[in-house]
Amino acid sequence: MAAARAHFGDRLAAAVERKRSQLVVGLDPIPDLLPVEMRGEVARFCCGIVDAVAPYAVAVKPQLAFFEALGASGWLAFREVCGYARRAGLLVIADGKRGDIGSTARAYAVAYLDGDEPLADALTVNPWLGRESIEPYLASARRYGAGIFCVVKTSNAGGDVQDVMLSDGHTMWQHVAGLVAEWGEDLIGECGLSAVGAVVGATHPRAVSEARKLMPQAIMLLPGVGAQGGTPADLARAFTSGPASALVTASRSVIFAFRESDSDFRTAAANEAARLRSEVWAICGW
Amino acid sequence: MAAARAHFGDRLAAAVERKRSQLVVGLDPIPDLLPVEMRGEVARFCCGIVDAVAPYAVAVKPQLAFFEALGASGWLAFREVCGYARRAGLLVIADGKRGDIGSTARAYAVAYLDGDEPLADALTVNPWLGRESIEPYLASARRYGAGIFCVVKTSNAGGDVQDVMLSDGHTMWQHVAGLVAEWGEDLIGECGLSAVGAVVGATHPRAVSEARKLMPQAIMLLPGVGAQGGTPADLARAFTSGPASALVTASRSVIFAFRESDSDFRTAAANEAARLRSEVWAICGW
Repeated sequence: MAAARAHFGDRLAAAVERKRSQLVVGLDPIPDLLPVEMRGEVARFCCGIVDAVAPYAVAVKPQLAFFEALGASGWLAFREVCGYARRAGLLVIADGKRGDIGSTARAYAVAYLDGDEPLADALTVNPWLGRESIEPYLASARRYGAGIFCVVKTSNAGGDVQDVMLSDGHTMWQHVAGLVAEWGEDLIGECGLSAVGAVVGATHPRAVSEARKLMPQAIMLLPGVGAQGGTPADLARAFTSGPASALVTASRSVIFAFRESDSDFRTAAANEAARLRSEVWAICGW
Repeated sequence: MAAARAHFGDRLAAAVERKRSQLVVGLDPIPDLLPVEMRGEVARFCCGIVDAVAPYAVAVKPQLAFFEALGASGWLAFREVCGYARRAGLLVIADGKRGDIGSTARAYAVAYLDGDEPLADALTVNPWLGRESIEPYLASARRYGAGIFCVVKTSNAGGDVQDVMLSDGHTMWQHVAGLVAEWGEDLIGECGLSAVGAVVGATHPRAVSEARKLMPQAIMLLPGVGAQGGTPADLARAFTSGPASALVTASRSVIFAFRESDSDFRTAAANEAARLRSEVWAICGW
């Protein structure tokens, strides 16, 4: 059976080419940080951000935690924002870092990725439960052209787990990177990129470079630029598999840019998104 | 500042003592498996199960994936079921296996554990992002008497990640078990049990026994009995730190018991819960 939509990597590659951008704007609508006039208006705020950044970003990445914290109204806001972003020509990467046994993971796949009009184009997932827990998402990739990003090495201080040294001389995250490459090897699009990508923290430049070697066909989602401290120059190695082979995500530094400026939140977000997009495009060398 | 409620382990120990039960009933409301007359009525079905199992179980464990798959109405159902279960005298363990960097994990803690009337008494969490990602939940434990269960070794075939051998001769899950013991050591209740527990698949009897040694004060949540294939007899070692030191969770084998019987779904669930509760209580040896 043919996928309802094209392969995730191919859709992304086309968008990167068209927009000359590898920027993903994270939507972290933290209630206390919203502009005063937007308090309690999470959907309206996020849709305003979507309008502002749509010319400069290829995707938005709504962080589910901040929508979940608002209960049913958060869920409605999430659905509204996802639809709005897709109509604005952006891909949607739901940042849920979900991970559960296969029969449960299937429910997450249904919730976010399956069907002809799914909420999201891709979902971030947690690899801790192994391949069996990833299978349902691979099925979504095959059948519906969905993408996933496995959390391989995070931008936080998670080294007590991810950096543990294995008996074969690799670190634990390197082992997981190898698995991610395996899980994705039957799901390579025409552009040469897999539907199975990886989250690799931009705060670890050396890890980014190693991750690229271990997962040559994975799209790398690189958080940690901006508010978390990485700089785009640290990331050049990630792009060696093509212009769409890595995405730089910036969240709070874009959506809350108004807090450091005199501009309206939309204008401030647009300016910061435009700046980052150019900076990344220049560095990636394509 | 004193916790709003008593320590999670102490509340659980009191419930175990009172009910002479270590049974947790998992609420996995898979739409296609509901009784015909309950299709589309997830909250009503789950509340019926709560009524049926309340005399025999100490807690229910709603699996978030199945509520999320229903969108906003699923969220409303989840909230209704959590409230209903707590009014029925059951503890609520939200099974979300959440895991994200600290500033995001805080939003999950707010969503499920914080406040004077939180949705849940405890949350399952994923340790892959390390201690920094767990801190917000430890704060919820200190401040609100919440509990967490870190996913240490799962009931599925997750060995490609969890069973990897480390340079120190331990497996990866054993390393994580050691971290869980560390994370929980400042959060021991009067009963001697920590607010930081662990999920350990009942399908791995030897792992259960090793896990108990590595985490002597952790409450072990043991899924995989029934539908997933483990038997209560495999689990005796888990209980060596006291009658409340382990909980056996059964989900589909209880809530869908009507499918193997001629009874109403409530009666079938009650019968199966009663049977399992006695079986586990006998085996735990207390």
